Amino acid sequence: MTGSVNATSVGVVTPQTVQFDDPLALDSGRVLPGYTLAYETYGTLNADASNAILVCHALSGNHHAAGYHHADERKPGWWDACIGPGKPLDTNRFFVVCSNNLGGCHGSTGPTSIDPETGSPYGAGFPLVTVRDWVRSQARLADHLGVQCWAAVAGGSLGGMQAMQWAIDQPDRLRHAVVIAAAPRLSAQNIAFNEVARQAIRSDPGFQEGRYAATGDRPRTGLMLARMLGHITYLSEAAMGEKFGRDRRDTRAGYRYNYDVEFEVESYLRYQGESFVEHFDANTYLLMTRALDYFDPAASADGDLAAALSGVTAPFFVASFTSDWRFPPAASHEIVRALLDTDKRVSYAEIRANQGHDAFLMPVPRYREVFATYMQRVAEEVGV
Amino acid sequence: MTGSVNATSVGVVTPQTVQFDDPLALDSGRVLPGYTLAYETYGTLNADASNAILVCHALSGNHHAAGYHHADERKPGWWDACIGPGKPLDTNRFFVVCSNNLGGCHGSTGPTSIDPETGSPYGAGFPLVTVRDWVRSQARLADHLGVQCWAAVAGGSLGGMQAMQWAIDQPDRLRHAVVIAAAPRLSAQNIAFNEVARQAIRSDPGFQEGRYAATGDRPRTGLMLARMLGHITYLSEAAMGEKFGRDRRDTRAGYRYNYDVEFEVESYLRYQGESFVEHFDANTYLLMTRALDYFDPAASADGDLAAALSGVTAPFFVASFTSDWRFPPAASHEIVRALLDTDKRVSYAEIRANQGHDAFLMPVPRYREVFATYMQRVAEEVGV
Repeated sequence: MTGSVNATSVGVVTPQTVQFDDPLALDSGRVLPGYTLAYETYGTLNADASNAILVCHALSGNHHAAGYHHADERKPGWWDACIGPGKPLDTNRFFVVCSNNLGGCHGSTGPTSIDPETGSPYGAGFPLVTVRDWVRSQARLADHLGVQCWAAVAGGSLGGMQAMQWAIDQPDRLRHAVVIAAAPRLSAQNIAFNEVARQAIRSDPGFQEGRYAATGDRPRTGLMLARMLGHITYLSEAAMGEKFGRDRRDTRAGYRYNYDVEFEVESYLRYQGESFVEHFDANTYLLMTRALDYFDPAASADGDLAAALSGVTAPFFVASFTSDWRFPPAASHEIVRALLDTDKRVSYAEIRANQGHDAFLMPVPRYREVFATYMQRVAEEVGV
Repeated sequence: MTGSVNATSVGVVTPQTVQFDDPLALDSGRVLPGYTLAYETYGTLNADASNAILVCHALSGNHHAAGYHHADERKPGWWDACIGPGKPLDTNRFFVVCSNNLGGCHGSTGPTSIDPETGSPYGAGFPLVTVRDWVRSQARLADHLGVQCWAAVAGGSLGGMQAMQWAIDQPDRLRHAVVIAAAPRLSAQNIAFNEVARQAIRSDPGFQEGRYAATGDRPRTGLMLARMLGHITYLSEAAMGEKFGRDRRDTRAGYRYNYDVEFEVESYLRYQGESFVEHFDANTYLLMTRALDYFDPAASADGDLAAALSGVTAPFFVASFTSDWRFPPAASHEIVRALLDTDKRVSYAEIRANQGHDAFLMPVPRYREVFATYMQRVAEEVGV
């Protein structure tokens, strides 16, 4: 932990959980009898509860968005670049909340949780949830925290989609929507990559139709492949080229002429895949990718995104990154255009950045600058 | 077979094989005691053997480049769009030859062949081969056919890389090099995709360290995943979007909320993966991807591609496709620039096409036009 000595870190944080006992009706038609959400908060809620910001995580994220869980944690939370004193989501002003999504595997109710009806882990029996279900489940978290209206709901990638869905489904409960590196829906190519990842997991003999929890085995290889593939789509070709190029692992000798690691990029991917398997659940990975596939707010308005956004009252801050080929600037353009078509307020920044989709997680100076400028306006609006 | 009634098809063709009994020394240091090449020919070799064109295939291709194997074959050879009477590789003028690469699984010696030393299939014991090895092995085919100098060596993708290597290694044995949708080397992203494909195959329990031939099992799932992934990289995002978009398989009902096929693109990928497994060998797939990884002619000249190309005498025809993100136009630019830097003759066409990398296989009018124009010059040069 380097953050403790750093005035821009929220320091050591302690995750919390809250249990909701009322049933939650899901888009799928199924009903969860109750659920737990794991969450973290950074900063202090003010007296009129007007300075709360909900941060939504992406596919493989969780509620640990900033700071450190203990003094010797190696890496801070996933959005530490943007959450902390003096950062865009300035914890000197805002009370920032991030919860693990329902269906997750880091403390919120999900496939690894015990199904009260069976006394065993849900596994594949856990219902598919949608982005709209997440909004519903997070609204109860707002109630629990005494937050009637978020100053903003913010997120990148799948998190940005959740912010958009919040603005559509709960227009009275957020003042601003911050939608970064997101898309109004997945492209065929996006779905295709998700499908390969899912097939890798589901065809792994360790998957056992998703009922692996009791067996001591699990689809390690499939989940590793899914993560390796995901990683390729998170980085731009240029960033990968700069980082690895055709660098060899061992340059002392000629080519090995076998399938061991020959190039650095192979080593990197294998490492990413193998370490991911240690802290992520395969059923959750399936569920998160399917929630992405299904996200398509325009579908409820005959494909007309502007119509789907017509009831929105929150102004939007939308940002994209030039080298992002997973959710490219054109996808953000579509969101911006639809908002303008239905006369909503929207600020848009297209950030020159080389890192690809992952840029939204990184301390890209221009990104932090425009994001901070927007959040400064939000802070002034709520008087903090 | 629709081609038989079509004056632009070469019609029914019969594959041939030739056995070479002299040992072949490979780049890896290993020696093949002998090898067979399967090949097809289209058109007629002229008296002075000046009208022969060698066509080189890509990753999953084979020697069946044009026409039909029998009257009810559903699809013609892989480059039927460009080989035949009146087509760019005009069989009324040229004698076109295509061989299955060494290491292939369609008749040439490869992992599925019997290792004379053991009496069992080579499997994983088959040596890795390189693009240079392919040139060596194909030179003997030229000898066998009585072709001292090819009018052209031509190919797309990995086939284009072979054409480039021919121009470097055998400058006296080709008049022209036709390099389409290729690259001077793989990018880190290209290698990364190959690595995920290889891991999918090698981690499949059916792979059994490549010694699956005798077991009756094989890595079906891994090879299927590799092919699904490959397909995504062969198509442009736009082409996939136009072809499938978010079209649903069954639009009569709402979402299924499970992992069965929901979107057409999922169905397409599964079908492509499953049918590929029926006619391709996993060890060959590994070998072909590794040959791609290793291809890097500049490496032998301290990274200076122009220097690597300095001994080339054949003029080059280079073509790329605007929507190809596997080997994008920038990769072809690098080849063209290096040729110009070392004062070689090169024609370059950048074709506007929406189909992505696969465009090189398709009857894109502008592509066929510029390709045919170039080949017309070649025909005139050799007097056919």
